[in-house]
Formats: sequence, C-alpha cells, structure tokens
Amino acid sequence: MTVRDRRAIVAVNMRFISLLTDFGLKDGYVGVMKGVIWGIAPQVQIADITHLIQPQNVLEGALALGRAAPYFPVDSVHVAVVDPGVGTARRPIAARLGAHYFVGPDNGLCTLLVAQARQAGGPVCFVHLDQPRYWLDEISNVFHGRDIFAPVAAHLVNGVPLESLGSPIDDPHLLNPPLPKRTARGWRGQVIVVDNFGNLSTNLTGADLAGMDNLVVHIAGREIHGLVKTFGERQPGELVALLGEAGDLTISIVNGDAASVLGVGAGELIEIFSD
Amino acid sequence: MTVRDRRAIVAVNMRFISLLTDFGLKDGYVGVMKGVIWGIAPQVQIADITHLIQPQNVLEGALALGRAAPYFPVDSVHVAVVDPGVGTARRPIAARLGAHYFVGPDNGLCTLLVAQARQAGGPVCFVHLDQPRYWLDEISNVFHGRDIFAPVAAHLVNGVPLESLGSPIDDPHLLNPPLPKRTARGWRGQVIVVDNFGNLSTNLTGADLAGMDNLVVHIAGREIHGLVKTFGERQPGELVALLGEAGDLTISIVNGDAASVLGVGAGELIEIFSD
Amino acid sequence: MTVRDRRAIVAVNMRFISLLTDFGLKDGYVGVMKGVIWGIAPQVQIADITHLIQPQNVLEGALALGRAAPYFPVDSVHVAVVDPGVGTARRPIAARLGAHYFVGPDNGLCTLLVAQARQAGGPVCFVHLDQPRYWLDEISNVFHGRDIFAPVAAHLVNGVPLESLGSPIDDPHLLNPPLPKRTARGWRGQVIVVDNFGNLSTNLTGADLAGMDNLVVHIAGREIHGLVKTFGERQPGELVALLGEAGDLTISIVNGDAASVLGVGAGELIEIFSD
Repeated sequence: MTVRDRRAIVAVNMRFISLLTDFGLKDGYVGVMKGVIWGIAPQVQIADITHLIQPQNVLEGALALGRAAPYFPVDSVHVAVVDPGVGTARRPIAARLGAHYFVGPDNGLCTLLVAQARQAGGPVCFVHLDQPRYWLDEISNVFHGRDIFAPVAAHLVNGVPLESLGSPIDDPHLLNPPLPKRTARGWRGQVIVVDNFGNLSTNLTGADLAGMDNLVVHIAGREIHGLVKTFGERQPGELVALLGEAGDLTISIVNGDAASVLGVGAGELIEIFSD
Repeated sequence: MTVRDRRAIVAVNMRFISLLTDFGLKDGYVGVMKGVIWGIAPQVQIADITHLIQPQNVLEGALALGRAAPYFPVDSVHVAVVDPGVGTARRPIAARLGAHYFVGPDNGLCTLLVAQARQAGGPVCFVHLDQPRYWLDEISNVFHGRDIFAPVAAHLVNGVPLESLGSPIDDPHLLNPPLPKRTARGWRGQVIVVDNFGNLSTNLTGADLAGMDNLVVHIAGREIHGLVKTFGERQPGELVALLGEAGDLTISIVNGDAASVLGVGAGELIEIFSD
Repeated sequence: MTVRDRRAIVAVNMRFISLLTDFGLKDGYVGVMKGVIWGIAPQVQIADITHLIQPQNVLEGALALGRAAPYFPVDSVHVAVVDPGVGTARRPIAARLGAHYFVGPDNGLCTLLVAQARQAGGPVCFVHLDQPRYWLDEISNVFHGRDIFAPVAAHLVNGVPLESLGSPIDDPHLLNPPLPKRTARGWRGQVIVVDNFGNLSTNLTGADLAGMDNLVVHIAGREIHGLVKTFGERQPGELVALLGEAGDLTISIVNGDAASVLGVGAGELIEIFSD
C-alpha cells in the first residue's frame, strides 16, 4: 500500500471522526458525544484515541493527538476536548490542518497538527465557531464536547464547509512543547510521554542522534551505551535506548516497565553525548 | 440543528445500539456482545456508554443511562446489563420508551427512561422476552447480555416488532431514585453521581433553585455562597456550585477534584437555602 | 436465530475486525490501528475485545481471544497483539482458522482458535506475512500492530486472499495451556481467568464433571458442596461453584468478589471429587 492508494480510497468517503478527551471512561460523556454525532451524521465511523488524558492536561492531550492523527485517513475530523476553560471566553474553534480537520477549544490542543501541516506544506486555516445553528439547541456552560464540538464535527463530515461553521481567525492559541537543547557534548531533552508499558518517550529524535558515535544516554542516574534496534537484542530486564514508534528516542526495559523501575515520569531530564 | 432535523435523518436509519454494563473493560464480554449483534445486524453502529458501573449497582446504571440515552438518535436501542439476578426468575424485558428502545433485565435499569418518556407524553410499552427464537441457541445462566439481550437488540434494529419479541407486561420493576426534600428554609438533597473530574452531581436541579435569592449551599461542612455560571468565574482550587451538564446542581473545584478534596461520594447530603 | 442464519447474513458482508492487545487504553495505540485500518478498508466495523491483557502475557491473551472470537460473525478477522518479541525474528503471521481469520505475531496467541477450528473440522492454514506491499510504507521495530497487522487485516477484509499476503507455513508456534489432571478421586485443575467480578474461571469443564455425584470442590482451603445452576439459588456473600459462560467450572461469591475474598488469582489449584 502506498500513501497515494490510501488517499484515493478515502477521498470519496470522508466519514471518520476521532475523539480524544480527558473525560475518562466511567461517566458516559464519550458515549453521549457519539450519540450526538450519529444523530447528525449517521454514516460516520468514530474511533476513540484516548479518554485517559490527565484531567486538564492540555499539553499531554496535544502530544497524544499529534502522535495518533497522522495515521487516520485523509479528511478525518479530530475532536479533542481537554478544556479547563470551558464556558469562559476561550473560543471554540475548528481548523483545516493539512490533510485533517480539528475541532475543539482554542487552547493549543492542535499545536502538533499545525506543526505537521506546516511541515508538509498543507493548508492551515482556523475558524472561530460562532454559528449556533450548527450546535445543539441548548448549550451548557460545562460540556461543549457534547453541545458544540460533536455537532460541528458531524456537520463537517456531512460536507458543511469550514467557513460556514465560523469566522476566520489567524491567532489560534498554540503551545510551546518543550524542545531539546544543545549542550557542550550533545543534547539535553526530557521525557514527554510514558506509555502503558512504562516506555519513556523523549523529545529527542533520530535526527538529533545523527552523527553521534558511541552514543551515551544519561537518565535518572543511569547510563546506557548505544542504541538497540529492537527489544530482542537484549535480555529481559535490561535497560535499553531505542527509537520508538514515533521516531523518538525511547528508554525502555526489555519486557519490563522503565518508568516504575527508574521511578521517573514526564519531565524527567535526559542527556545524550558521544563517548 | 433542530430536533426535527435529527429525527428526519435518523428515522430511515434505525441502526444505533448503545451498551451500558458493569462488565468492566478487561474481559472481552463487551466485545462478545458486539460480535453477536453484528452477526444478526451487520449494519448497526454501536456506542459504549460505560462499562464501569460499580458491579451490581443497578441505581448507578439507571442514572447513567438516564443521562446519556436522550442524546442518542431517535429509535436507538439501549442495552443495559447490570444484572445481579441473572439466571433467576427476574424477567428479561424490552420496551418502547418514548423515542427510544430499552433491552435488559427487569430490575429498574430503565427507570429514568420511563420517567422521561412519560414526561414527554411518549409511549411506554414493555414486553417480557419469552421468544427464544430471537436468542442465541444456547442460553447460559450467567451471561444473558450475550445470549438474550444482544441478539434481541439486533433483531429490534432489523425491524422485528417489539410485540414479536415477547408478551406485553404492565408491571415492570422500577426504582425510586432518591428525591430531594423540602426543609424549613430550602431543600435537602444528595450527591447522586461523582464523575471522572470529581464533580459532585446532586438530585437538586435548576428548577429547585428558582426564586432562591442569596443561595447558600452546605455540603461536607463547607459553605458556598451563590452559583457561578462557569468554572472560569473563580480561581483554580476554589469550591463552587453551578448547574451541571444535566441541569443538576453540581459542586466542583475549579480545575480540581471536589470529591477527593471534600472526601465525599454518592449519598452525601447537601442542603440549600436562601440567606 | 440459528447458526445457519447467522452465517447466511454475514457471508456477503465480510467486514468485521476484532482487536485484542496489551496496549492499555491510555496511549492512543488502539485508535491509531483503527485509523490505519479505515484508511484501507473504510467500510469495516471494528470491535475491541480487550486491551487490558497484562503486558506481554501471551497465554492470557490467547485465552481471552479463544473465549470471544467464536461469537463473532463468520469471516471476522481477529487481530491480536501481545508481542514481547516485536522486531525480532518471530514471524508476523495470518491464518484461516475454521470460520475466522487471525492476524498477529507467531507466538501462540491463536492457540485456542486453532484448537476450535480443528475440533469443528474446519480449515487451519497459516502464512508468514512476508509481502511488504500490504504493510505501511515505513515499518518500525516496536509497533507491528500499526505497521503490519492492522493493514494486513484491512486488506484481508477487502478480499485480498490469504496466500497473497504471505508464504504458507506449517509450523506455527502454539502454546500448551495448562490442562486438568486425573487424581485418585477426581480432577485437579487450576484457575485460568479472573474476571471483572472476581469470578474464578478454571480449566475444568462441565464434561469433566459428568457422572460425579455429590461433587465436592476444594479451593484455597475452602470446600464447596455441589453445583448451583445460577447465583440466585444462594444468598449474597455465599461461595458457590457453577458452570460459567464458557461452560467452565467457575467459583464465585454471590454478588461478591471471590478472587479478593479468597485472595487467589490465575494459577490457583482446584480439586474436585465425589463425596
């Protein structure tokens, strides 16, 4: 399969919505959003990315969305709701970002999608959702996911143009995700995501490592020499550095949980240099 | 979007099922129900409302279903299985309740849907599921969600009339959810749902507050003066009272977790009065 | 509904994929797999079986898959990824197993599906996935669920024949799930699954109990006399033995949690004999 094939199939079937929230799985809020979407766009397929973002942690949501969205079909609509400012003056927005759409609060959740779209030379167009005829009839002050974002996403999927949904804006709120810094001998970065397996994903990438011979990694008082290509090169229980699924420098324990063994989480510093 | 629009679109596409259970997410029970449904009704869209109802807590299930179901398209079939009496004489039932269908055990899970249907002047018709030709061939004594409720819901979606699925009954088991009581100065209610964010949703509603000037709320030894319209009116960490997504009086901590800070849960008493 | 009916409906709609992994629900890995699948096969319905398999516990995954898969429509594709050997020489495989397809690593996850297919006299055909044209363009060493298994499953659903996806093999890796053993007086088995309710499912089945009068069950220092047919025959809190949803001898506490009350889990020994 080539990317071109995938595009061809899906362009005539613009009918995918992803959901990413900090709602958890206990309360039915996510199911309610699906009910609202299907009431407007019964044909749409809906995938959950995650609903276990730490409550109100917009950066964590933005990073998770940036990792998942590129794997969805062209023209997918990504609804993300991590929204500590719900009901305040923060704007509800929608955007065309490269091959994808975003719908959610104007608080930076789409930061990585914007960066990806710009890098690919794709369109980056935002609107302020100010057309209540595309919302539910009654709008609460606490659940815009249900009342505004779900119906707007459904109308987008149904073919309502972005410009009908709101007025153009060019000042969306974007985050500044932590970037690695040059050191005398290499780079200093940090852990940005800890996954279900305890893998420590960092903001250092394969590109940062280019040309570094005899790589040494320092993290949490431990030293790792060299990268492995795959877990199977070392014994279970061994601490390794490798490139993760997103091309990011990742610290793992083979068949184990690096986060709990090292006792670290997001924000932990990591240093790399050539020996 | 108006309610009329939504009805028009969906009436010709009666093909949504929601699932609400206490099965948890670990065991594959929910996936099995989807497999059974799709074997009979391959076209149906299925949404999970929640599967994290406390095991055997029928009231919690009924409240969650009552909050979510109204947001689903007209003619949706809501399958709810919190079923401590599975395999006993408790009847399996299905019902037309206003614009929706219910399928599950006869133990009160549908209580709020019945109340909503009656309030809207819609139909309320129950049948005792006694027609095994619409079930799986083999019926266990422990998993009617798979063996009876999933296939019955799928046949409903396929157009089998309610009256073909079972014999009419007019004595369904309904619960008496806790109601607020008048006090000398106002109302005494209780917390009925604690959500993922620690918001404390109560059985007091906006209607109960009508005409109460200078509102004072007492809960867990704390006093709150006045309602806010949205979290953003107060600083992070502050305790507030506001109307929640279901129009219910809700006690929250701005960007925090009221349930853990106050150390309370469902059943906690709350008093309101005019100062 | 008969099994024949189900087959007839679904044979013309080969469009179901189930997912079973140890990925957890926090990271978006599962959503990414759905995005990849829908990019190739936009019409497919996808059901999660579970993503809470204990990390790297292949046997637990195989048992969960064996319990759920038979309830899916004929021609469903079951993608299972519990994959401690990802990126090593362990082969990616796909298989026709009776009425179902399997896609995943060659580590025994499909063991019970193979046994079920053989018992039913159905086909058992494996291929080594060695045709990268059916994969994503870039293959990581850590996420074959996204890069190989999801796209292969989507192509299968689209009608690509198994033999086009890889070369035939006849030596798949299969597990030896623990089997019960004959004792002087009956059988010794073990707990193999603990579910969300704390029910202890064992590797003893109804067939093992045939002809055993006055059954006595020994587990965790407790003795249970006789089987009940359903929880409702005993009082809440009572320890009972009954046949579970899979026909397996199951130890439960009525409306309670046998696993935590007895303090036992998978692997706990159980003995049964006639009194």
